[in-house]
Parts: sequence; structure tokens; C-alpha cells
Amino acid sequence: GGSYLGTQFVSQALYAHADRGVQLHYLSNVDSHNFHAICEQIDPEATLWIAISKSYKTAETLANVRLAIQWMHEKGLDPTKHIVTVTAKDSPGDDPSNPVLASFHMFDFIGGRYSVSSAVGAVPLGLYLGPDRFKAFLKGMAKMDDHALTAPPNQNGPLTAALIALWNNNFLGYSAQGLIPYASFLDKLAPHFQQLNMESCGKSVTLGNSPTTAPTGTIVFGEPGTNAQHSFFQLAHQGRPFPIDFVGVLTPNYPQLEDPQTQVTNHEELWANLMAQAAALAVGRFHSDPMRRFDGNRPSSTLVIRSLSPEDVGRLLAFYEHRTVYEAFLWDINPFDQFGVELGKTMAKDIRQKIIALHTGPAEVKPSSSPIEACYLEMLASGEVPSKPTREK
Amino acid sequence: GGSYLGTQFVSQALYAHADRGVQLHYLSNVDSHNFHAICEQIDPEATLWIAISKSYKTAETLANVRLAIQWMHEKGLDPTKHIVTVTAKDSPGDDPSNPVLASFHMFDFIGGRYSVSSAVGAVPLGLYLGPDRFKAFLKGMAKMDDHALTAPPNQNGPLTAALIALWNNNFLGYSAQGLIPYASFLDKLAPHFQQLNMESCGKSVTLGNSPTTAPTGTIVFGEPGTNAQHSFFQLAHQGRPFPIDFVGVLTPNYPQLEDPQTQVTNHEELWANLMAQAAALAVGRFHSDPMRRFDGNRPSSTLVIRSLSPEDVGRLLAFYEHRTVYEAFLWDINPFDQFGVELGKTMAKDIRQKIIALHTGPAEVKPSSSPIEACYLEMLASGEVPSKPTREK
Repeated sequence: GGSYLGTQFVSQALYAHADRGVQLHYLSNVDSHNFHAICEQIDPEATLWIAISKSYKTAETLANVRLAIQWMHEKGLDPTKHIVTVTAKDSPGDDPSNPVLASFHMFDFIGGRYSVSSAVGAVPLGLYLGPDRFKAFLKGMAKMDDHALTAPPNQNGPLTAALIALWNNNFLGYSAQGLIPYASFLDKLAPHFQQLNMESCGKSVTLGNSPTTAPTGTIVFGEPGTNAQHSFFQLAHQGRPFPIDFVGVLTPNYPQLEDPQTQVTNHEELWANLMAQAAALAVGRFHSDPMRRFDGNRPSSTLVIRSLSPEDVGRLLAFYEHRTVYEAFLWDINPFDQFGVELGKTMAKDIRQKIIALHTGPAEVKPSSSPIEACYLEMLASGEVPSKPTREK
Repeated sequence: GGSYLGTQFVSQALYAHADRGVQLHYLSNVDSHNFHAICEQIDPEATLWIAISKSYKTAETLANVRLAIQWMHEKGLDPTKHIVTVTAKDSPGDDPSNPVLASFHMFDFIGGRYSVSSAVGAVPLGLYLGPDRFKAFLKGMAKMDDHALTAPPNQNGPLTAALIALWNNNFLGYSAQGLIPYASFLDKLAPHFQQLNMESCGKSVTLGNSPTTAPTGTIVFGEPGTNAQHSFFQLAHQGRPFPIDFVGVLTPNYPQLEDPQTQVTNHEELWANLMAQAAALAVGRFHSDPMRRFDGNRPSSTLVIRSLSPEDVGRLLAFYEHRTVYEAFLWDINPFDQFGVELGKTMAKDIRQKIIALHTGPAEVKPSSSPIEACYLEMLASGEVPSKPTREK
């Protein structure tokens, strides 16, 4: 499912601290291209598959586990020696009649997007980073938890960030925000926060189950700087404005050389760019040529972290968790449910039944109100798309 | 710069067609972490560095070329035998006094975001895919060019998509759009289109240099489905709505097995999900419990492509180029300039001068109107962040 995003963010952020003997690959999409691309890169005998699903009923995860089992059989391997599960106690993934190498448990009340600090993150990240670094990461998270819980409102980082988000959203009317870390290794921060915040705050009813009275949730997107400057900052400066969270890292992981040409290090160049962008958005520039004019007054926040150490990355992740939860509290909505994913699942089930009917019965397409569905099913029936798959051996 | 995004999109989309002997790594960020992470993964002797810069003055590119040259010297290699350049004729990258293995030329009027079909894409993709597949890719692009130029308006795909985008933007008031390909290998489509569209259409003056009268440009973001369903579709269904482009691929690159449990293949499961999401957004569902209610009436378009073949990927890329350019034409703005990136560059230069002053002179911080800048420069001066870098040997 989506819970890989948090673990992927952390493994990428702590790349410089990883044990090079262990590589992580993330298989989450039901699209078998995801599966095949990974299989080309791994050594079957030296691979441990970590199957993560709280309910152990997630369709995508189970479909991929079945593909992996079949692939191991083809390679002459015993799957029960190559799979561990992370799942709720007594789920189908924790059933001795489905033997695996080991099962690790997670509490059943933890949603995927908040699960990095549970066994969901601990198993892959513990192997990738080693237990000590994973503990340091947890310590950083715990410190931010403590800060979020106890710091007074006017010194509380995540609460301040939540209030700024609410101001940008409901008072200034911005429907989207950018998240731009000036750090290559934080390139998965935006996709993780995109899930965390959009799934938690995209709600239309309050805790009392009445409709919300103001728009909740924000569209979150982002890429690392300086790359993003060459990509979509044109729109930020001269087109449709959107608030931005910049993230800067004070101490780099690698020693820096001064470039004889520019007389600064790459890391200083990075910082010069970060600071320049925030200032340029804020103050703008008048110019007699409208084409070269910058309106300014475009809001941004800059978050500074000391380094990409396990502890600091833990703080950063927990910061965004708490900001998200505070946003939800301010709107009086529940950040821990996700009823909005239900309808698509139900409707996918109906379509699956129609596809199965085409496989097994005469090629007849039931009428559909969706033109895409009608078109796809007709092409399946006529053989224009491969309709008779290989049967599993 | 940003021109790597198009090439990265194509190399990823055509992963199944690539020559496994050649791997592409993308180094674009001035952040040296990007450089170090790549250096850990490559064999210096077997590596060809392709330095791509139209002007050969892009700060990030040149800083990385200098790091690469130094790294090759450390490994005892001759950099002139391991670097080729792609640049405008007679630029500093095409100067015999800076010898390289070969220089490939690009026209100086091609912007980075439209450059995949020039030598910018041809050199890396020609090596990665082989010349025949790259030619097939170009052929697909040319076919879409021809369609966009000659098809009547009511049968013109990119023009129709541009009109829908304008309708969503200026008439329905949506400021953002999602781009969700149901195909793992299209995972770089959204970042590429994000750059292409946001940099081209994020303008505030018309071709006649007067202020635009309607908002131009849209925030573009996206991740592949089914992953995105578990990530941010909650917001799409029950929170703040945004229009979505779905992309589906009819024929998979790999043979499909029917899953004995679900009785469909993974690829059919993928399609069932795609179709269900579009339908669920459109029709919604009434429910007596407000928490389980879906308003519906949320717009989406579904683009169907035959396969991830070089030709079809070429058509897809050109489709989004033409859609972007048609959007700009409808707004009477110039999709090929990017004056909005200038101010940040100018301001970064000023900050760089202050950092150099701290390196060379007494540790004295000039007053700044930016609190972030003041804080960073003070920490540099006090030694709290490493201020004295290693001098280049």
C-alpha cells in the first residue's frame, strides 16, 4: 500500500549512513512492471522479502507476495525461508498454516502513513541502517514528540507550522503548497508528506460528523532544490503563487571542496540558492518591463536542520507528523481515518467481476455508464488487448 | 539544469527496451550529495560523463563537471577521454582549448524542457536504447507533431486537452491538476510534465507584454497508480477536489499470469482500479452517514496508450508538449521563455559574495533584511557550520 513512502523517505535521507551490504527495493504497485524491474536487479538467493500489511488483506500486497512466491519456486528456492511479514497479531500473515521465516507485529490502530516508527519501518530500516542508527532515529522522533506535546504554543514548532498552513489555506486562499528541501537525499520528503498530509487532512466531516465549514487539506507537492528552480519556480515567481516550505541542512554528509572558479563550496552554493529563493519570493522586484517584474509578497517558511543524521531525520519526520495532526485538530477533523478510499475499492470489485465474466463466459460486454470501461471491456472481448493470460502453472 | 527530466522520463518509460549494458545516472543538483551518491555506484574507467548545457554556463552543471574532473584525476584517469558535451555550437563546451572526447550540438533556440528530441536526449538515450529505438521514439513524436498541426480542432487530442485544462483552470477555478499514470514505468511523467507545463505557462504577461487578465498556469503533481490511491486520493474524493489526467497502457511489457485467488492478471487489476477511480470521482455515492458520502462531480480525463513502446512513448511525450503549447496560445503567452528564474539567480549571486567575504576577510556579517540569511551567515562566521572548506589541491 502507501506505507512504504515513510520508510523510503528515511532510507533515502540516511543513505550516507547505510550499511552498503544491504539494499532496499520497494514493491508496492499492483502493476507487475514494478515486480519485474526489481527482479532483474536482485539475487534470488540473497534476497529477503518483507511483506508488510496490517490486515494482510491489501490486494496489491498479496498479489505481489503471490508473484514473489511463484518466482522463488521457479528459482528452486523455498519461499518460507525468504519471507518475513510485518502485520497485526493474528492476521492471515501471522498464521502458522502460512509459514514464513518470522512475523513482526504492529498495533492494529496505526495507519500506514504514521507507521515508520513501528515494525513497518523497524524491520527494513533496522536491516539497512543497523539497530543503533534506527534507535537514534526513534530517539529523534521521540524528542520531537515531546516538544510537540509540551512546548508552549508560541515556541511550538509543529503547532506554529500548522497555524501558518491554516492561515495560507483558509485566510489567504491557497489550495496547494510546495515542499522544497535543498538536499538531494531528502528527495522523498515531499512524496511522504504528500501522503501524510493529504490523506490525513482531506476530510469533509468534523469529529462530530457534520460537514466542515472551511476547506480542509492542501495539495502538497515538491522536488529538491536546486532542481526545482529549473523546473517549476517560474510559476512560483511570475505565475500562480503558492506557499513553500524550504528545508535546509546546515552540515553536509561529505567533506566540501572550495570551487576555484566560484570560491564557494557546492554546499554553500546550495544555501545561497535557498536563501535567495525565499527572499526573491518575499520581496520581488519592480522593473519597468512587465516581463521582468516580480510581484513579491509570496509566502514561504524555511526549516533549518542541523544535519542528515539519524536523530535529525527522526525529528524532521516527526515534525511533519505533528504539523499534520495539529492541522487536523484545528479543523476538528480526524487525521487517522481514510473513508475516501472505499468507493474506488468497491467499484474496482465490480469491474473485476466483469473482466472475470469475459475470461470464463462468452465474450459479451455488459453495458456500462463509463465510456472508458465500455471501451476497455470491448477491446478485451474482441482480443485487441491480450484477454487470455497464461494460466499459472 | 532541469533538462534532465525529459530524458529521465523516457529512459524510465522504456526500461523494458533498454540495453542492460548501459546504465544512466542523472546528476543535476549542485548539492554534492547527488554527486557522491552516484560516484559510489559507478566504475570510473567504464563511465562516460555527458555534460549537457546549452550555454555551457549553467552554474550547477559546471560545478558538477569540475567535481567529476577532479574525481577522475584522483582515480588516475584522463578526463578528456571520459567526457562528451552536448551544447550550442561555439559555446565554452565546444571549445578546442577545453578538449573533450566529442561535442554534440543543439540549436540555441531550444529550451531545456523541450529538448528531449534534440542531442540533449539523443546522446544519453541513443546509448541507453540503441539508435533504432531512439529513432522509433522520434518517429512517434513526429506523428504526434503532425496530428497536433493538422487534425481539425474537434479531433485534435492535444488541443482538446488544452481546452479542458483552460476550462478547469479559468472556468471551474481549479488551480492544480493531478497526473496519474497507471504504469510504474511512467513514474517520471508527472515530474517532467510538471516542469514542462509550469515553466511554460506560469506567466503574467501576454505576448504583447501587457498583464494577463486570467490566471495562467496550473500546479501539476502526481505519482503512479495504484500507489497514489493509498497516498493522496483521500483528498481527491472527500477533501479538496482537483482535476486528474489518468493514463492507462493497454498492452503490458511482460507476460501476465492469472492470479488463482483473484482470477485476473495484475495488469487487469491495474485497469480495474484506474477505471474505478475515474468513475468514483465522477459519480460519487450518496450515503446516510456523511463520513461515507462522496460528492462526485469531480473531473478527470483518461488517456489510453497502446503500449510502452518507443514510438508510443514518443507520442505521449509530444502530446504533453503540444497540450502545453496550445494552452499558452489560448492564453496568448509565450511558452518558451522563463524570465521568472532571473531574480533568484541575481540574489544568489549577492549572497555568494557575502559568503566569499566571510571566507577571505575578517568574520564580519553585513546586515541583511532576511532573517534566514542573517542567521546562516552568523553561524558561518562563528564556525557553527563548517566555514573553512578544504582547499582544492
